[in-house]
Amino acid sequence: MAVPEPRFSLGFDLGGTKLRGIVLDPADHSVLAERTVPTVFAEDALLETLITLTGDLGAAVGAGPGPGSFATAGLGAPGLVDRDGVLRYGANLPGVVDAPLAARLAERIGVPIVADNDATCAAWAEHRIGAARGHSDAVVITLGTGIGAGLIADGTLLRGRNGFAGEPGHMVIDPAGPPCPCGRRGCWERLASGTALGRMGREAVRGNRAGRVLEAAGGEVDSVRGEHVSIAARAGDTDAIEILDRFCWWVAAGIANLVALLDVEVVVISGGLAESGDLLIEPIRRHFAEQLYGVERRPRVGILTAALGSDAGAIGAALLGLDRSAPGDVQA
Amino acid sequence: MAVPEPRFSLGFDLGGTKLRGIVLDPADHSVLAERTVPTVFAEDALLETLITLTGDLGAAVGAGPGPGSFATAGLGAPGLVDRDGVLRYGANLPGVVDAPLAARLAERIGVPIVADNDATCAAWAEHRIGAARGHSDAVVITLGTGIGAGLIADGTLLRGRNGFAGEPGHMVIDPAGPPCPCGRRGCWERLASGTALGRMGREAVRGNRAGRVLEAAGGEVDSVRGEHVSIAARAGDTDAIEILDRFCWWVAAGIANLVALLDVEVVVISGGLAESGDLLIEPIRRHFAEQLYGVERRPRVGILTAALGSDAGAIGAALLGLDRSAPGDVQA
Repeated sequence: MAVPEPRFSLGFDLGGTKLRGIVLDPADHSVLAERTVPTVFAEDALLETLITLTGDLGAAVGAGPGPGSFATAGLGAPGLVDRDGVLRYGANLPGVVDAPLAARLAERIGVPIVADNDATCAAWAEHRIGAARGHSDAVVITLGTGIGAGLIADGTLLRGRNGFAGEPGHMVIDPAGPPCPCGRRGCWERLASGTALGRMGREAVRGNRAGRVLEAAGGEVDSVRGEHVSIAARAGDTDAIEILDRFCWWVAAGIANLVALLDVEVVVISGGLAESGDLLIEPIRRHFAEQLYGVERRPRVGILTAALGSDAGAIGAALLGLDRSAPGDVQA
Repeated sequence: MAVPEPRFSLGFDLGGTKLRGIVLDPADHSVLAERTVPTVFAEDALLETLITLTGDLGAAVGAGPGPGSFATAGLGAPGLVDRDGVLRYGANLPGVVDAPLAARLAERIGVPIVADNDATCAAWAEHRIGAARGHSDAVVITLGTGIGAGLIADGTLLRGRNGFAGEPGHMVIDPAGPPCPCGRRGCWERLASGTALGRMGREAVRGNRAGRVLEAAGGEVDSVRGEHVSIAARAGDTDAIEILDRFCWWVAAGIANLVALLDVEVVVISGGLAESGDLLIEPIRRHFAEQLYGVERRPRVGILTAALGSDAGAIGAALLGLDRSAPGDVQA
């Protein structure tokens, strides 16, 4: 049996609970196959999992069993990934520190592979084929458990000296705010992530407000998460609407800070919270317009929801693999 | 008499009170002539002032009286300067709005001229020939009446979609902080500029503390400015040292935010406050190390004082003029 020419790209998105892999067709950017497995928390075990996943994905698209079955590959990982693709540190991946996953995986599967921060990968996907397509200056923020981001400046990824650029989740925006595991107080992700919305919901419930939030969480205050606030707000609970509005003020405050610094054309909101759509986007847009420095002197800045959903990280990793291996295109 | 070949570059730094012009020799970056005149606050009058200044500076270096006496020119202006060199808006230049100063001046003096934000010009000068030389990723912040900045990413100026990038002075860092003329509260420049240090000094004096600060200001509380806090701290006043330490905490908090976002190698502190040298830099470095996200996983980030002093803006404008007119070099 003839082994097909390698032409597909592999993309991996390594999360705090799940590892997702996809096969991308560079011709039309379609996802040809996908697999999700639980994350393992040790470097060697993670490597073996990635190799198994590569084999499974290869089999699914008939790419052949051996080395060289894929043209390129990319890996998105949560935390600080340096310019050589080494995962230096991720709060959600204890036990995987200073891990040269890309180099080790490339050697084992015989495919060139790049690694970058997961939110950076998602941003690249939204810039190349998603909501930020056609915009040379963009920020894509991922609102989930924390806040991640990818920065596009003049059409290329802003990576920083070490590859660590784009961590607005740990910009302090309220020094009197809630404590952050990073050791400081009032980091943006303590006030504007899904985790923050859940905390605001629980605080309201404990103050005997927002009954519908409690109801949505099954009557158990400790079970209240951000999505329950969204559900109650959509059902018309005025307390939940008020919580959501305050939450959106914080999201907008951070976005206004980013735009004052980076002067982007669009801000794309990705991650779990983006699924709330207009319920979130409309108040964010309103507060953002109040808070942006020099708003009356600037062309309008678009605040958009992401187009690629939860596959953005894996698709972006695959695209980064392709783009960095193409001469004259984006260079690492 | 033979008109000499044009080879020098003109640089202008338009401030809220003074307009400074210099002649730069591109061969060795020496300043061959300089003139300072009061700023005028109307577009037409400003244009005439710039033309007169050009003539005076030309005469000073024997560059000939007519059009084409200089090779290139650059203008730094406070506020939002767009990518076409139009000064859109500057809080300190009321009456000069949407002013195409660069285009009008170029037409009148027959020399190509670029315009950009003044802090951006200063940053470019520090990157090209000053404290940030040799560093591909750098932030240069100007601590004065407000806070300005220029961002260097991968060796080029980060300008943003409209040319407005680099306004960290209006990043909100404490929503409960002092009100800002921009309409919000707790913008970084309300807490970490020379103006902020003066306010902290006056507050202490009104609370019957920091006697030496009052003394340095001639016994008049309303005359207390940032420099009086520095003088008293240098003289050993413990209240003044405490004020300065708190002030440096705020400076460091903003810098830590910028580094989390941009992952730069060095941060250069420019502007009037930079003249306080180690008195400020040491506590800023200390607080910065406590506040930087992932500090233990990053190579050290240098916090340096500027090398070019108060001429940085005009030198940077002249250098931008040269660099943007040289093919293959920095493009506008």
